[in-house]
Amino acid sequence: MRGFGVRFLRLFSRASTAVPQITTTPLTCCLHRRVWVCSLPFVYRRSVSSAAVSQHIQDLSGPEQRLLNKLYGGLISGQRASLAESITLVETQHPRKKELAQVLLQRVLAYQREQENQNGGKPVAFRVGLSGPPGAGKSSFIEVVGKMLTGRGHKVAVLAVDPSSCTTGGSLLGDKTRMTELSRDMNAFIRPSPTSGTLGGVTRTTNEAIVLCEGAGYDIILVETVGVGQSEFAVADMVDMFVLLIPPAGGDELQGIKRGIIERADLVVVTKSDGDLVVPARRIQSEYTSALKLLRRNSKSWNPEVVRASSHSSEGIPEAWAKMESFRNTVLTSGELQGRRRAQQKVWMWSLIQENVLCHFQNHPSVREALPRLEEQVTRGVISPGLAADLLLKAFSASS
Amino acid sequence: MRGFGVRFLRLFSRASTAVPQITTTPLTCCLHRRVWVCSLPFVYRRSVSSAAVSQHIQDLSGPEQRLLNKLYGGLISGQRASLAESITLVETQHPRKKELAQVLLQRVLAYQREQENQNGGKPVAFRVGLSGPPGAGKSSFIEVVGKMLTGRGHKVAVLAVDPSSCTTGGSLLGDKTRMTELSRDMNAFIRPSPTSGTLGGVTRTTNEAIVLCEGAGYDIILVETVGVGQSEFAVADMVDMFVLLIPPAGGDELQGIKRGIIERADLVVVTKSDGDLVVPARRIQSEYTSALKLLRRNSKSWNPEVVRASSHSSEGIPEAWAKMESFRNTVLTSGELQGRRRAQQKVWMWSLIQENVLCHFQNHPSVREALPRLEEQVTRGVISPGLAADLLLKAFSASS
Repeated sequence: MRGFGVRFLRLFSRASTAVPQITTTPLTCCLHRRVWVCSLPFVYRRSVSSAAVSQHIQDLSGPEQRLLNKLYGGLISGQRASLAESITLVETQHPRKKELAQVLLQRVLAYQREQENQNGGKPVAFRVGLSGPPGAGKSSFIEVVGKMLTGRGHKVAVLAVDPSSCTTGGSLLGDKTRMTELSRDMNAFIRPSPTSGTLGGVTRTTNEAIVLCEGAGYDIILVETVGVGQSEFAVADMVDMFVLLIPPAGGDELQGIKRGIIERADLVVVTKSDGDLVVPARRIQSEYTSALKLLRRNSKSWNPEVVRASSHSSEGIPEAWAKMESFRNTVLTSGELQGRRRAQQKVWMWSLIQENVLCHFQNHPSVREALPRLEEQVTRGVISPGLAADLLLKAFSASS
Repeated sequence: MRGFGVRFLRLFSRASTAVPQITTTPLTCCLHRRVWVCSLPFVYRRSVSSAAVSQHIQDLSGPEQRLLNKLYGGLISGQRASLAESITLVETQHPRKKELAQVLLQRVLAYQREQENQNGGKPVAFRVGLSGPPGAGKSSFIEVVGKMLTGRGHKVAVLAVDPSSCTTGGSLLGDKTRMTELSRDMNAFIRPSPTSGTLGGVTRTTNEAIVLCEGAGYDIILVETVGVGQSEFAVADMVDMFVLLIPPAGGDELQGIKRGIIERADLVVVTKSDGDLVVPARRIQSEYTSALKLLRRNSKSWNPEVVRASSHSSEGIPEAWAKMESFRNTVLTSGELQGRRRAQQKVWMWSLIQENVLCHFQNHPSVREALPRLEEQVTRGVISPGLAADLLLKAFSASS
């Protein structure tokens, strides 16, 4: 049983003639000290070539097979209920359901590749991340932009990344009620953030929810950050374009902007630019325009810009969207978008690995026993950080 | 033998009555895919309380004991040769010498704590990190500031962090020759960067070299970044104050500034502000002053400022140093400096752990076998990053 992972990986890593393997092994891992259980791997009845992996996930019971067929069929024909149920499956903590979710996801990924091939190798959907400090008016902006896009014939999905939802609560209902019009729109799909509270977990399920929405025919995916923590960076790492919304205010209000996030922005939108706020919005616009010149660029082919918009009067909204479309065309033509997506896939994989491996370390009995005292000694300067790290690593590798 | 690490950690983690342990176990670990070998742990002849750990590192042969006594005695009496030899010991790759280095370091840390206690619990030395894009004039600035400080009775140590030195070479000799005057000053100690090329390794030895310099009575430690990579962040994480040097140039020259590093600056110095360059230097000063207002502050008690200085005419140099002293007084009074140091100790420990654990993962035979194919499949979108991460983690935990 201990060697199974290796054999299974061989199945994945090369065209193999390995013997049939039918088993299900639970892998206990955790993200940010919260334990979740994922059960892996799927089951293969016969030898497979790596290219054909997704067609060979079998060993499903009759009801399971029917459930997946129903979900997949409903999803790719664009049924909202099937999409919602599929996302719930991806978000589940149940080991067997997690496996089913991966089977479904593999099928949707295969479908998506087909679609891309028909589209000349170019991604069909456009993924836009929207972030900003509390009070920047993210939900209002998404509501107005979303309505405009569905009016133009697009199908718009709105997903939220909220690593703090389990502790702060509230934001879920808040978003639902704030986007009243969009949530009633048949060409829009709004999915509040999952309530399983770790960043890694949410990042992963949001990533996978994006794939499912695209499978269901949504061609514009808006990913909104909600709450605090590292969600801005998580979102910037899963979208084609990262848009930062800034309210026309200065000083302390802007302290809510995460360190380093301004440099990730492909576009800055100064919100609430109407009435009395037009003047401060213009000032903020020129300040950010200057500041962006001093910061590093994300893209070789695109210079980040700062625009003003009002969700209230809709002034500047079509122009803001035009900038986003212009960004998309630029990076699609230069091939940067495709490169960015490829790089993101690897970043996600490695950040999931890093979190899990570090967590494995932190939960190791010897490490857990020694850590508090060593950490305290390091903080007091009694021993050097290097020595403490060596001692903990020693304990980890000695008995793992 | 496998349980030794655990038992040893128990010695560290609580007052214990453990039986004597005399052994030396090599721990093979690596940083950024480069393998280094550190030999751990030291040896205990009798039961120890954790508080008394540093006094109980014994089991040294006669010659080893004499070497350490000589180095320690020479170091704390301020002998440059002993300091240089001690830093070389800390930088060594030799397993037994690495142990000796840790024994020495524990003694110096104990000495440093005594000094701090006599100083009312406040750090005796001031650690300043200096960074900037290539051509910002870091070495010239350090030369002029260093000379000014030794003239005022300070003892100044200059250390370099250069993760790229092993590949680019050159910078070592370059620095030595550029700081001609300072290198001949008896109250200055210039140490070029170690040539062992990994970031983690260099960060660690630079950290430990800082402690040794302080033990030798140097009260101003200037840590300069050389070369590229993540060295700016490594330096910002090991100093009391982080100073960014910017040349009076715009656009492409400034692309050499690392993403996110401007927000780490406690002070920005626009260099070369003399002659024809005064005008562009003033412009850069005002641009950065505006930009800094939009970025997050590092400190609750200090607002980052932008000053101009010329290493050529020395204009603005005393004022720049006065700002640094003012920063130090502010954060010492508010207690932020002490808090920052405590936090840094933990950050160093965890970043060393993270690098090592991830490297342990990457070097695992099953992971190494499966990784290239899985990574390629993730990049092509054949399997999801989450599934690939799960499969790799499964292989890692199944056979580790």
